[in-house]
Amino acid sequence: MSRQPKLAITMGDPAGIGPEICLAVCGMPVVRKAAQLTLVGTRSILERTARELGLPEDWSAAKDDEPIRVVDVGEASDAVRWGHLSPQAGRLSAQYLDRAIDMALAGEVDAIVTAPISKEAWHRAGVRHPGHTEYLAERLGADEYAMMLVHDAWRVLHLSTHCSLRGAIALVEKERIVRMLRLFDNVLRELGIASPSIAVAGLNPHAGEGGLFGDEEITEIAPAVEQARLAGMRVVGPISPDTVFARARTGEFDGVLAMYHDQGHVAVKTVAFEPGPSGRWASVHGVNVTVGLPIIRTSVDHGVAFDIAGQGIARPDSLVDAVLLAAQMARNRIQKRGAGA
Amino acid sequence: MSRQPKLAITMGDPAGIGPEICLAVCGMPVVRKAAQLTLVGTRSILERTARELGLPEDWSAAKDDEPIRVVDVGEASDAVRWGHLSPQAGRLSAQYLDRAIDMALAGEVDAIVTAPISKEAWHRAGVRHPGHTEYLAERLGADEYAMMLVHDAWRVLHLSTHCSLRGAIALVEKERIVRMLRLFDNVLRELGIASPSIAVAGLNPHAGEGGLFGDEEITEIAPAVEQARLAGMRVVGPISPDTVFARARTGEFDGVLAMYHDQGHVAVKTVAFEPGPSGRWASVHGVNVTVGLPIIRTSVDHGVAFDIAGQGIARPDSLVDAVLLAAQMARNRIQKRGAGA
Repeated sequence: MSRQPKLAITMGDPAGIGPEICLAVCGMPVVRKAAQLTLVGTRSILERTARELGLPEDWSAAKDDEPIRVVDVGEASDAVRWGHLSPQAGRLSAQYLDRAIDMALAGEVDAIVTAPISKEAWHRAGVRHPGHTEYLAERLGADEYAMMLVHDAWRVLHLSTHCSLRGAIALVEKERIVRMLRLFDNVLRELGIASPSIAVAGLNPHAGEGGLFGDEEITEIAPAVEQARLAGMRVVGPISPDTVFARARTGEFDGVLAMYHDQGHVAVKTVAFEPGPSGRWASVHGVNVTVGLPIIRTSVDHGVAFDIAGQGIARPDSLVDAVLLAAQMARNRIQKRGAGA
Repeated sequence: MSRQPKLAITMGDPAGIGPEICLAVCGMPVVRKAAQLTLVGTRSILERTARELGLPEDWSAAKDDEPIRVVDVGEASDAVRWGHLSPQAGRLSAQYLDRAIDMALAGEVDAIVTAPISKEAWHRAGVRHPGHTEYLAERLGADEYAMMLVHDAWRVLHLSTHCSLRGAIALVEKERIVRMLRLFDNVLRELGIASPSIAVAGLNPHAGEGGLFGDEEITEIAPAVEQARLAGMRVVGPISPDTVFARARTGEFDGVLAMYHDQGHVAVKTVAFEPGPSGRWASVHGVNVTVGLPIIRTSVDHGVAFDIAGQGIARPDSLVDAVLLAAQMARNRIQKRGAGA
C-alpha cells in the first residue's frame, strides 16, 4: 500500500470563515483518514477560534496516528477582526499561500488546499494578483493553466477566467481551445478516468443555431473539436450551452469545456449552492481545481463570507470536498510514481 | 367565484413529443381542474398517438364538467413521422400557433400554451421567424417583449434572447435595462406579488470586480438600477452572475434580470433538468413565459426531443407547469377585471 498523501491547507483570510472551516475539517475522521494535514496559518488565531467556538483545547492532537501539524505564519493584530476587511488580513492570507507553495516545492506536501481569501483585502495589501490562481501560476512559472470546477462527478474546465465577457469572447480561438482540451484530458486521466469524454459548449445561444446567432461555433469551436479528435481525444461539440451542463450531470460526459467564466460558474454554483430554509445556503459543495500547475492545488468554491465569520455557523462542505479531491489526486500521483510510470 | 380560465394548447411539431405530452396533460385531474382546455392540432395525429400509446378511445371525453375540445388544423401526411424533421411538420406547427392566436384575439381563450416546435423545421417550411416568441410578437404588434423562465418561485427575465453573445453585450444599455425592469415588475405583479423585489445580474465575472473585468456594471447597469429605484421599483444589483441565481433560489428575490440568454438559461435549465439514472432526464420542469404581449403565453422549457418521440416515455412535467402557470395568470386577470381594476 502506498503512503498517505500529505496536504497543506492554507487558512485563508483570517477575518473570514477560513479559520473555523479549517478547524471543522481537521476534526472530521473522513478527512483525517484520507490525508496527513498541515494547517498553514496564524496559530494564535486558530487557538482563539477554537476557544470562541468551544472546541476542545487539544483539537490538533492525534486522533488516529497523526496530530494536525500547524505551520505558524505571521502574527494576529488588532486590525484582524471577524468580518472586518483589512490589508493586514489580506497580507497574512498571502503569506500562508507563499509558505504552502514553499512546502510543495520542497516536497514536504503533495498538494495545497486553499480556504477563501478576500480579493479586495489582497488588493488593499498591495498584492497585485487578482486571486489564488494567478498567484500560483506566476510563482510556479505556469504559462498555460485553467480553472476547473468539480461537483461530484461533474467537471467543468473554463477556457478563460478573470477577464471581461467581451475579452473572453476574443479568447474563443481554435488553438487555445485545443490546448485547453489537452490540459482537460490530462487532468481527467489524473482523476482516474481511463479514456475521458469531453463535451465542448458553444459560445452563443443554441450554439449559434447554424450561424444565425454568431459564428464562433463554425469558425473556431467545431474546427478545434475536429483537431482534438484527430489527436485521439474523445471530444464532442459544440453543444448548446443551456443543455450541455445538464447533460453532463446525467453522466453523459466526463467533463465540459466552458467557453467563459460565468458559463461554467453559473451552471455549477447554481446547483452546488443548495438553498436552505432561512434564505441562506443549506450547504455549498464543489471544488475549484487549478489545472496545469506543476503541483496539485484545490480550493473551496465560495468566498470569505464576512457576514457570518466567527459565528460557528459556516458549513465546511466545500472545504471537505476540496481536501478529499486533493487527497485523491495526490494518491493517484503517488501510486503512478510507485508503479514507475 | 370567477369563471374557469380557458386555455388553447398548441400541439407543437407533430413529429416530436408534442402530441403525446398534450394527451398526457389532458388526462391529468390537476390540469382539468385548473382550466378549460382546447387542443389546437391535427385531430388524426392526436387520435393516432392515443391509439399507439394505448390511451382510451374517449381520451377527450368529459371527466369533470368539460370535455377536451379539439380544434382540428391541417392534415397529416406521410412526411410526418415520429422523430422525422420535415417542412410539412414545421408548417403544421406554425398553423396551430396561428389558429391559437386568432382564438386569443377573438376572446375565445384567455391564454395560449405552446408545446415545442422545431426551429429547423420552421426554417425549412419557410417560416422566417426564429421561434414562437418572435412570431407572437410580430403578429401581435408587440415592440417590447422579453422571455421569462419560471421554475417554482424562481423567475428569470432576459435582457435579450436570440442573438449572438457579442450582440447581446451591445444590448446591455441603461435605458433598455430600465424598460425591461418595468416589464418584469409588471409581470411579477400579475403573478400576484404585491411589491416584487428584483435582482439585476452583472454582465462580467464577479460583476466586473469594481471595473477590473469590464465596466458595463459601472457605465450601464448600476445607473439603470438607480433609475428604476427612483421610479419606485424594488431593485438591487448588479450582483455577481455566479451567485445571484443561487441566491434567488433561496427566495431572497422574487426575480432576477439576466443580462443575456445563456446567463439565465444555463442557471434555470441546469437545475430544472433533473438527471435521471439512465443518462436521460428524470424530469424537466420550468416554464417559458413571453412577457410584454397583449395576451398571456406560456411554453414548455424544452425541445421536440425527436429521439424519443412516439415512444410514450416523454414526461409532461414542463407542459403541466406551463398550463398551470397560464391558468394562474389568466385567473388573476379575470379577477382583476371582475373587480373593475
